[in-house]
Amino acid sequence: MDVQSDSAVEPPEMRWNGWGDPALATELPRAVRALLPLLLGRVRRPEPAPSIDEITTDDSRLGPDDLQALHSVVGRDHVHTDAETRLRRAGGRSTPDLLRRRQRRQRVPDAVVRPADHDQVGELLRIAGERGIAVIPYGGGTSVVGGVDPDAGEHGAVIAVDLARLSGLVRLDAVSGEAVLRAGTRAPEAERLLAEHGFELGHYPQSFRYATIGGFAASRSSGQNSAGHGRFDAMVTGIRMATPTGDLDLGRAPGSAAGPDLTRLVLGSEGAFGVITEVRVRVHPVPAERIVESWSFPDFATGADALRAVAQRGGGPTVIRLSDEAETGVSLAQVGRIGRALAKGASAVTVFEGEDAEHRRARTAALIAEAGGTSTGRTAAEEWARTRFDGPYLRDALLDAGVFCETLETAATWSGLHGLRAAVTDALREGFQAAGARSFIMCHVSHVYPTGASLYFTVLAGVKGDQLRTWEAVKHSVGDAIMAAGGTITHHHAVGRDHAPWLRDEIGETGIRILRAIKRELDPHGVMNPGVLIPDGRGDA
Amino acid sequence: MDVQSDSAVEPPEMRWNGWGDPALATELPRAVRALLPLLLGRVRRPEPAPSIDEITTDDSRLGPDDLQALHSVVGRDHVHTDAETRLRRAGGRSTPDLLRRRQRRQRVPDAVVRPADHDQVGELLRIAGERGIAVIPYGGGTSVVGGVDPDAGEHGAVIAVDLARLSGLVRLDAVSGEAVLRAGTRAPEAERLLAEHGFELGHYPQSFRYATIGGFAASRSSGQNSAGHGRFDAMVTGIRMATPTGDLDLGRAPGSAAGPDLTRLVLGSEGAFGVITEVRVRVHPVPAERIVESWSFPDFATGADALRAVAQRGGGPTVIRLSDEAETGVSLAQVGRIGRALAKGASAVTVFEGEDAEHRRARTAALIAEAGGTSTGRTAAEEWARTRFDGPYLRDALLDAGVFCETLETAATWSGLHGLRAAVTDALREGFQAAGARSFIMCHVSHVYPTGASLYFTVLAGVKGDQLRTWEAVKHSVGDAIMAAGGTITHHHAVGRDHAPWLRDEIGETGIRILRAIKRELDPHGVMNPGVLIPDGRGDA
Repeated sequence: MDVQSDSAVEPPEMRWNGWGDPALATELPRAVRALLPLLLGRVRRPEPAPSIDEITTDDSRLGPDDLQALHSVVGRDHVHTDAETRLRRAGGRSTPDLLRRRQRRQRVPDAVVRPADHDQVGELLRIAGERGIAVIPYGGGTSVVGGVDPDAGEHGAVIAVDLARLSGLVRLDAVSGEAVLRAGTRAPEAERLLAEHGFELGHYPQSFRYATIGGFAASRSSGQNSAGHGRFDAMVTGIRMATPTGDLDLGRAPGSAAGPDLTRLVLGSEGAFGVITEVRVRVHPVPAERIVESWSFPDFATGADALRAVAQRGGGPTVIRLSDEAETGVSLAQVGRIGRALAKGASAVTVFEGEDAEHRRARTAALIAEAGGTSTGRTAAEEWARTRFDGPYLRDALLDAGVFCETLETAATWSGLHGLRAAVTDALREGFQAAGARSFIMCHVSHVYPTGASLYFTVLAGVKGDQLRTWEAVKHSVGDAIMAAGGTITHHHAVGRDHAPWLRDEIGETGIRILRAIKRELDPHGVMNPGVLIPDGRGDA
Repeated sequence: MDVQSDSAVEPPEMRWNGWGDPALATELPRAVRALLPLLLGRVRRPEPAPSIDEITTDDSRLGPDDLQALHSVVGRDHVHTDAETRLRRAGGRSTPDLLRRRQRRQRVPDAVVRPADHDQVGELLRIAGERGIAVIPYGGGTSVVGGVDPDAGEHGAVIAVDLARLSGLVRLDAVSGEAVLRAGTRAPEAERLLAEHGFELGHYPQSFRYATIGGFAASRSSGQNSAGHGRFDAMVTGIRMATPTGDLDLGRAPGSAAGPDLTRLVLGSEGAFGVITEVRVRVHPVPAERIVESWSFPDFATGADALRAVAQRGGGPTVIRLSDEAETGVSLAQVGRIGRALAKGASAVTVFEGEDAEHRRARTAALIAEAGGTSTGRTAAEEWARTRFDGPYLRDALLDAGVFCETLETAATWSGLHGLRAAVTDALREGFQAAGARSFIMCHVSHVYPTGASLYFTVLAGVKGDQLRTWEAVKHSVGDAIMAAGGTITHHHAVGRDHAPWLRDEIGETGIRILRAIKRELDPHGVMNPGVLIPDGRGDA
């Protein structure tokens, strides 16, 4: 079926200096407000953040010839140099990004350019290469690793290429269960378009409401339903990318031995080689059924053993996640009395959707029970499902209250998991201690594999001085600790600029040389997203 | 557990001019002998093939300095320049290879070098680069795509680097279900070593008895149990490769977003970038249970719909394969009376191993029955399982009888599968017709994915003239037909030299540029397996 439908519905524009829909910005829940002084001591409420018209930005450095060249590709109406549009594309949504959004002087791209289609993207990149203008591919703006900073690198100017107009379903093959989506399609819009035909993609990262299909591919995203549907990598069956020197159009068959799978080079390329314009993905029928169940374990280690049994013996949950004792305590405190009664040990959530769900539930339940878990009914799991995209709103409220809050994540084999968790926890605690700050560290497992699992940390800290500088030091020691403990520097947040210093440890000098060689070939002028991925941001040796 | 066990058992050396264990070479079964004249007309029995001491080979082109340099790395005892050793490493096991093995003058590598470990491999590659000696990484010698031809490219000499001494289990992590195997470990030896610890890899391509772990990785192999355990790609969690300019050591976690997954660049690299020396793989407990069942469908299309239902709705077979009407007729004719009674329509085989096998069988059976299949009991499935590695022996017997026999394979989405099958069948039939030869074409599906499946063709032909030249022309038109019909040039046999002409169609000019750029970086002198993968075999533009 050739659908060629275009997305008409735009979600509410993201808060320029915080997460998500401005209408959903929230205050700190009373339970959290009561807890914070106990966990972190007294924290001073900061000055209110400046409003958008109080921010100073530099004028655009693009000359009239540059602008003329950009206009010739996308039309005058789609090249924006006003301060507000540029501020709204000034970075992602990590905590450092949000702290920078609270400063009075901010770095912004020199223009925001909105191409309409693949060919316009290709032409923009060619021109950018020619004129030496850096290009930041901009999708949902949800990067938490500095993936969309307006970094000109060695160039004189930088543009954000906003992919919002590349939205919609290009093609659906209902027989094969494959859909081609334009890269700028936001995830909820993708699901809406697929649902019209009875299909679902089923990729639900916490950034779901704003993230785009191209962003999922560029950053190797993983969603909450990864136990059932796999990482986004595993859903991709084909990809189209424009580079400054030519197009890539990959994926002729569901399985192939025709040389290395170059699709996997585009996945995770983070805009360093080019701009992803279309993604072909595996889709499945919208599940008719959804069964949720909550679990309690005496401790995190027992829970991890249960998750391992399920991952290795194939229980088949769509979602399985385990919170450590700290996260369990805090999350359940919010549920009220029922929660408090259960707030001992470690809690887990399972969800089953689709074919044979009841059998998979029963098998998973048996494996969990055998490993020492106790079913605690549906309440906590339903609460998790209801609020699962809301975490970032809470972070904004914490920052407003002066509490530092950030997340980070890694992964390791099952045998290395507890050592890695201890190493990260120690590095976080000691890092904040060194800055004279008390911290509270929570951890969960949300992605499991037969051979290992992810670890996702949330840290709150009562930082008295400069939060940005304090976090920079803590983050550095955590990165080193992850590498020393054999983990990956990122399981699903990507490298961006923030993790680039560790990529050499992750893939070795020869790995870096490979990335540089590819970048040199596709982007000889080094205009593509300078500074992401490759430590010094350039293809040059 | 650090095992560090070394392989002691060597399988019987492969027939130098045919498949497998010389003791298992077979005559044509009576049923096949009776069938052949009906299918192909009269075929003349060729002259008996020459014995190994009747073959003329060129003297080694390596000079004393070259030999001295090789000796300095691996020791004098592991550099072989005698004709027999070189003839035994003169190519793979495609039908063209076997036809060339029947010629009186043969091209061979200038030496066979047997390094002991990763470091010796790295040192050999560095020296080969320096001295301009081409290197063919040689594992099991089971390539059917010209992947191990002694091709010196632009260089003055070529060595086969035989990895037989890099055999054994390096490490087993029983908690995580991961094993590190040396690249030269043959598959049966790998399974034997893992079974000592209660584990299985479960990768069973038809080449199983001779192929190596490194070869599986280098060629992106897929095995008969792919429905249950996935392609070899999917089993690999880490990899180590020596290149002429440095080592790669990849795979820190079961899931990662740390840039593009470079492991996937090594998988399918076919020796063009370096030599894989160790592979980390996911393993699972040796299955306690095995249930087999055979199926009959009115026709291939009905059977394909049933396989699609199973792949998309998750029935969970370990093996599922469907033979078309022609293959069904021929295979069942060999089973005797029971077979003949069932030899109408298309037949399928399912196997279920491991956890929850009976439930998965019942679900798969229900899906197949719903799609129009009828269970035919266990006999045919057991017969398939018993003889599943024996096909190549039959081919030798056919070649001895003067009958041309070769296989080829491709894959497509479910919606493109029947068009692709028709296109390949037509190209095969018309190709042989143009050479005045009758042909008999069989096809099966042996690898299924939610979005599509593989197609595997076996063709017999009564070629009167030069079989090699006739096949070259037929193969060329089949390759073009596959590309035109939207299939992949190879689903699991790899590119080698034989499929290199189509790689540009498969991955585009930008894709070729990427491969060249990587090769230029890792192998600047172009000594690694010249001619495989990249159309002109060199990194140069």
